[in-house]
Amino acid sequence: MKDYLENINKAFESRVRLGIMSVLMVDDKVDFNTLKDTLQLTDGNLASHLRALEEAEYLRVEKQFVGRKPNTTYYATDAGREAFNNHLDALEQLILSNRKDS
Amino acid sequence: MKDYLENINKAFESRVRLGIMSVLMVDDKVDFNTLKDTLQLTDGNLASHLRALEEAEYLRVEKQFVGRKPNTTYYATDAGREAFNNHLDALEQLILSNRKDS
Repeated sequence: MKDYLENINKAFESRVRLGIMSVLMVDDKVDFNTLKDTLQLTDGNLASHLRALEEAEYLRVEKQFVGRKPNTTYYATDAGREAFNNHLDALEQLILSNRKDS
Repeated sequence: MKDYLENINKAFESRVRLGIMSVLMVDDKVDFNTLKDTLQLTDGNLASHLRALEEAEYLRVEKQFVGRKPNTTYYATDAGREAFNNHLDALEQLILSNRKDS
């Protein structure tokens, strides 16, 4: 019982972060507004979760100009992809163990 | 993408609460020390998560005396069982959608 709980990664506990990582696992690079629209979040809420994932080195930020407009894109690091996959594995174990017992 | 994220229940986001509910889904009644040992938590940490789940009406507390010693047990409410199963369903959808895309 304890084992798979230990593999549940605190960095991915909130559903916003689950959502961000899910998007970044599929698309190589995603800009702020696309994330915001996809996940239907406020700027501040999205930004604070992005910052936490960046500090954990699970994603990286790229700032560029598109014409004259600044454009910020995000992509998952290899460490982020691996950690997220491990997290999903742990959740899968949790689900299996609950379904088995019921 | 958004749909299953909306079904992820904030009350169960932390792994401590996932652990508490997993235990209560299996055993009808669990006392504080059993939960503490099973999940390897401090008293304060466990107590604060139990309180949050009680406030959400996902579990109930029963206080009794065993001999002269007070004994506090916890059990999941029907609402708690249903909500936790819905949460696990949402996590399952999240996993399936990530596995499918990769």
